[in-house]
Parts: sequence; structure tokens; C-alpha cells
Amino acid sequence: MNEPAYVAVDWGTSSFRLWLMDRDDHVLAERRSGEGMTTAASMGFGTVLSSHLQTVQASAALPVVICGMAGARQGWVEAGYVDVPARLSTVLSNAVRVPAEERDIRILPGIAQRSDTMPDVMRGEETQLLGSAGIASQRLVCMPGTHSKWVGVNGDIVTSFSSFMTGEVFDALSKHTILKHAMAEADSFDGSHPAFIAAVRHARENPAMFTNLIFTCRSGQLLHGLDATSAAARLSGLLIGTEFAGGLSIAGTDATVQLVASGKLLTLYEAAFAALDLDFESVDADLAVRNGLASAARSLFFAH
Amino acid sequence: MNEPAYVAVDWGTSSFRLWLMDRDDHVLAERRSGEGMTTAASMGFGTVLSSHLQTVQASAALPVVICGMAGARQGWVEAGYVDVPARLSTVLSNAVRVPAEERDIRILPGIAQRSDTMPDVMRGEETQLLGSAGIASQRLVCMPGTHSKWVGVNGDIVTSFSSFMTGEVFDALSKHTILKHAMAEADSFDGSHPAFIAAVRHARENPAMFTNLIFTCRSGQLLHGLDATSAAARLSGLLIGTEFAGGLSIAGTDATVQLVASGKLLTLYEAAFAALDLDFESVDADLAVRNGLASAARSLFFAH
Repeated sequence: MNEPAYVAVDWGTSSFRLWLMDRDDHVLAERRSGEGMTTAASMGFGTVLSSHLQTVQASAALPVVICGMAGARQGWVEAGYVDVPARLSTVLSNAVRVPAEERDIRILPGIAQRSDTMPDVMRGEETQLLGSAGIASQRLVCMPGTHSKWVGVNGDIVTSFSSFMTGEVFDALSKHTILKHAMAEADSFDGSHPAFIAAVRHARENPAMFTNLIFTCRSGQLLHGLDATSAAARLSGLLIGTEFAGGLSIAGTDATVQLVASGKLLTLYEAAFAALDLDFESVDADLAVRNGLASAARSLFFAH
Repeated sequence: MNEPAYVAVDWGTSSFRLWLMDRDDHVLAERRSGEGMTTAASMGFGTVLSSHLQTVQASAALPVVICGMAGARQGWVEAGYVDVPARLSTVLSNAVRVPAEERDIRILPGIAQRSDTMPDVMRGEETQLLGSAGIASQRLVCMPGTHSKWVGVNGDIVTSFSSFMTGEVFDALSKHTILKHAMAEADSFDGSHPAFIAAVRHARENPAMFTNLIFTCRSGQLLHGLDATSAAARLSGLLIGTEFAGGLSIAGTDATVQLVASGKLLTLYEAAFAALDLDFESVDADLAVRNGLASAARSLFFAH
């Protein structure tokens, strides 16, 4: 069956991805662009979406389901949050329809943790969680990124989660501190680099020394001639090792640890799990978000 | 006795301070400017120093002792490092004379820790350590700054130390990450702010959550309306609390904890010690560096 049935969109801060799908969740066409929330906020969300829908020749009758920052306050239409403990099916039933559009366009809400001491929010990851459910009922899900999430999931319920600013702190430190004099580009190394592996282990064991350990990227250069690629691998490993020290502490040890990632982050985090001798299963993040959007489409458009 | 006897200079990365001193270490004149290493490297170190010496009418016979980044490789004349375990008197005996200057000008070396896993360097702090020795033979010295140092000192010997990038990480995170949308200026709060005190305690107890806790400056704004001043106080407290978690772990618990700081950092760190219920003694950092330079002058110029 290759008749288009719906359109799925993952609309992040800096990226836009669209899939034209049939009723059996096969991908009929795909679009990727840099027109994330930031760009779309000035061009107009409706305009950006229409142009991509036209390119894939989506008829006016096809409904669209969207996850991600398009539902933020600064996005297209605010889709709010479901609070933890959050049933993933409640995320679906709280989708918001974009008003004044003839086409049926729904935006999924995010999830919020309204704790006094550990307030946190996610937008987009809830859809990946929906799309990565396996047979384990207790999951601790690691979702690397600009703001990595570690999420405790019990069956259909997100019980708690924590964001770690790993990707963004790497950028800020490597570009806007003294470490910039010691650093090669982030793409100069991979997870097999010995400096990355040693740093993951070191930071996991000594997270209290984080702001000291990062300085050794510079002092290692001054005293031991640490090369720029090793310094970048070391900084990345220190941030990821610290993230693991924190992330692993948020769920019980009997949970299945799941890594939801793709591309370079997938291989880096797989190497970090291996360096720490931790069991885990990987799920491709692109597939997870598409699966999640497909679940949403089934529930929102085809449940009757 | 008010006859000028020598000139003491603390020459940092971004600041220059000069004192005209008599033989009893009284200050006869003082100069402060922003002509630190960065500026002086382009203007010429000799030119900068001469102009200030002229202003305080220092005769050509007066010797000059200098500590700080003027002795770095990118500085005036490289003064190298004394390695840990480093006797502070060895710092004095390793002073380097600036060649091709008629005047007797000496630059003090820094201290290096050539450890494989914890390489570290200091330049300038060794002189403060020399000038802050009290009656305690075992000291753990906290020296806040752009790159805070925590230093273990046993009598006259620096046994080990760690730099924490507290000040520089605060700047990078508050200006170059998503946190910038949540932040007031760094001078908008002081150590009595409840958000600062709570954050110091929280991070000291949970250093593994550092890259998560900083995100709560933003998520707290989204979910609880955390105001910009509280967010800045919180970020500062989180960085200082993490620094304490690491710094306090590097020395035995029977060491006297000494805080060497001045100005805003002195009051912030005093508040952090109080928030954590820790005993400490404070020494003014300006006085400490002048005392240290005075010791150096005695040893280098007047020992005969």
C-alpha cells in the first residue's frame, strides 16, 4: 500500500525533518533542512511547512503530526507540557491542533518535571521514547545531544528525567575559554581515541573534579605536549563521563539501559558505554522519532 | 624609614599592579592598570614598566621583583616552573633576571605539577602562598579566581594543587549558552542571596549532576519563573559548590583551610564557606601578594 496517508515532522531548534508516510508507516518521501524553530520563527512556520509539503506533493487532505520545538512558547503554536509522572499516551491525547489552517495539523506537547530543586523540560524526546519502547518494562534511556536527557521510564510512564548540557557546554568551553588554544575541531576524533576513553573513565570516577579536569586539556598541552586532537577528545570524554556519573544515578540498577542516538553521537556514546563496561541496547534516534510520530498518527488520525 | 628601596610588581594576564616600597616593606606609592600580559605583549613589557616607574619617580638604582604571567612563555622573559613538591624558597632562588636591562629586574617562576593525569600550573599564586604563611604547618589554601587554585601546603612545601576553571566557566556559560536568556549580570547578587547559598549546598552534595544542575537555571525560569538575578546567583553557587566538592577532597581533613581572596570574590567565598559550615581563615589576596614580593625582595636584593 503506497498511498500517502499522513505527514510526520520532527521540528527542532535548528533542524526540520519531514516524512511522507503511508498507512503502514512506510516512508514514501523525506525532506531535511536547517529551517528549525529559530529560522521558521522569522520565515513563518506555515510557510516553511507548506513549501516542503508542496515539494513532496502532499495533497490538502493529508494530516500532519509534529513533535519538537514547534510546540514551544516561541514556536508555532504552544503545545504545553504533560507533567511527570507522564503517561506517553497522555502526550498523544494532549496534541494541539494548529488553528486557522484548513489542513489537520497537530503538535505534540513536551513533558515537564515541576520539581522545586530539579525542574526540567523535554520537547521531542517524548516522541522518541514512544517510538523506542521495547520489551523491558523498566528503562533508563540515555538520549545524547546539545542537552542530553537521561529518562526513567516504567512501562508507559515517564517517571523522572534530567537534562545535561553536554553538547552545549562542549561548544562553549572549546570556543570561549582558554581551552580554545588547545583544541582541534570536534570532528577530529572518534570514540576509539585513547584520550576519549581515559577521560570518560576519569570523569565518571571523579565528577567532583569536573572544572579541574577540563583545565588539564590546557595544562596537559603546556606540560606534556598534549596534541590538539587529544585535547578535544579529552574534553568530550570528560563531559560525557560526568554526564554518565549523573545520569546513571537517577534510576534503579535493575533498569535496562537504552541508548537512543544516531550518527556521530551514537558511536561516541557506544564507546563511552564500552569504556565503562556497561550493558546497554541502542536504538536509532531517527527511527525512534519516526516510530513515535507514527504511533501518534495512528492514535490521532486513524483510531476510529 | 621612607627611602624607596625596591619595586614590587604583580603582573597578571589582564592586570598590572606596582608598589614602590621602602626597606621595611611600607608602601610609598602604588599603580594599578589594565596593562596585563595581553596588552604588554603588544606594547612591550619594558615600555609599560618604565612608564609606571617614571610616574612613581623610581630611581635607576631601584631593583624590581615581578611575579605572575610576565614570566610565562608568552610573557616578557620565561621564568619556567619549580616542580611539586616545591619548596617556596626554591621559587625565590629560581628567579630569572631580565637580560639587557641596566636595572636589576627579576621575575619569579611559577609552580608545575607534572602528573600524567592531573597536570597543573600556577603563576602568581606561589607568591601569594609565600605571603600568606601563618602558624599552621598544614594548609589547604583556596585561591578563587578565573582559574581558582586549591593548594596543599606543608610548612614551606607546596605538595599538590588543582586549578578549577570556575570564573571562566561562569563567563562562558552565562554568555555563550542558552543560559544567557535566563541571566542577570554577575554583579547583580552577592553571597547572601538565598539562591546562591542553596546552589552551593546542592552542588557540593551532587557534583556528578553539575551539567544538569546548571540547566535548572533555565528550566527554573521556564517552569517556576526563576528571576534573572536568582539564576545568576544560582549558576555562581553551582560552580563554587562543585569547586568545593573537588577542592576539599585534595588534602587531609586536619589541614587548616585558608581563603586567600579580595573584593567580591572574598565575600562570595566567605559566604560559601559559611553555607557549608566549614571553618576557615581569610587572608587578603592583595596583602598576600605584596608580602610575598617583599619576602622575595629581601632574599634577592638584601640578603647580603
